[in-house]
Amino acid sequence: MTDFPDSHRDLLDAPVAAFSTVGADGIPQSTLVWFLHEDGELKLSLNNSRVKYRNLLKRPHCSLLLLDPNSQYRYLEVRGQVRIDPDDDYVFAGRVGAKYGADVREYDAPGTSRVMVTIEPTRVYPVDMTG
Amino acid sequence: MTDFPDSHRDLLDAPVAAFSTVGADGIPQSTLVWFLHEDGELKLSLNNSRVKYRNLLKRPHCSLLLLDPNSQYRYLEVRGQVRIDPDDDYVFAGRVGAKYGADVREYDAPGTSRVMVTIEPTRVYPVDMTG
Repeated sequence: MTDFPDSHRDLLDAPVAAFSTVGADGIPQSTLVWFLHEDGELKLSLNNSRVKYRNLLKRPHCSLLLLDPNSQYRYLEVRGQVRIDPDDDYVFAGRVGAKYGADVREYDAPGTSRVMVTIEPTRVYPVDMTG
Repeated sequence: MTDFPDSHRDLLDAPVAAFSTVGADGIPQSTLVWFLHEDGELKLSLNNSRVKYRNLLKRPHCSLLLLDPNSQYRYLEVRGQVRIDPDDDYVFAGRVGAKYGADVREYDAPGTSRVMVTIEPTRVYPVDMTG
């Protein structure tokens, strides 16, 4: 289990994070994502039709920037490898949806499915410049 | 000059963006940054002692996610190459500081300097899920 700093533990339950992968051209690709802190780990539910999923299959590492909704000067960067597990039955997606009061299935095109992405951090970097 | 979508032009003057580079280990590195929209281009002032500057010297591409301070469901991703110009006299840093009402020099350790990073977009991707 990752040792997240006490000073930034509240951000593990923050509403949104910036998630970055690396494209085939070597250029980072970033989007805002929902995420879930569960069993001490940071996890995402990704649709398997998305670019970020395909990036992770080929280059299984990422950065997740947990944003403080109240301050642009405080955040937690988590860099690391990813572990990808199937979530065809949407069990994990359901737990993410519960955090957000949403039915994740509504966002998915027919014929697509979901995976659970678990981040295995190699670096955790807390930032607080709120003074 | 880049053709930014009208729907997201306000974000070109947003207060903060998530900036991602790629580390030597291939893992994305992300931080929140100040930026300036000037002469139709997106530019950052970086201290030359920072990891992201060293990443850009070796891997001159990035992603910049312009965040809507009022909604986590609306943002503009700009991916591309970067052009790096010296800013030893802090002329550009001064213009960034003016946007934020800050003296950028106060953040810099003695013996360090600044560069101006200009993004040359290869992809501009607007997101609006505010419904």
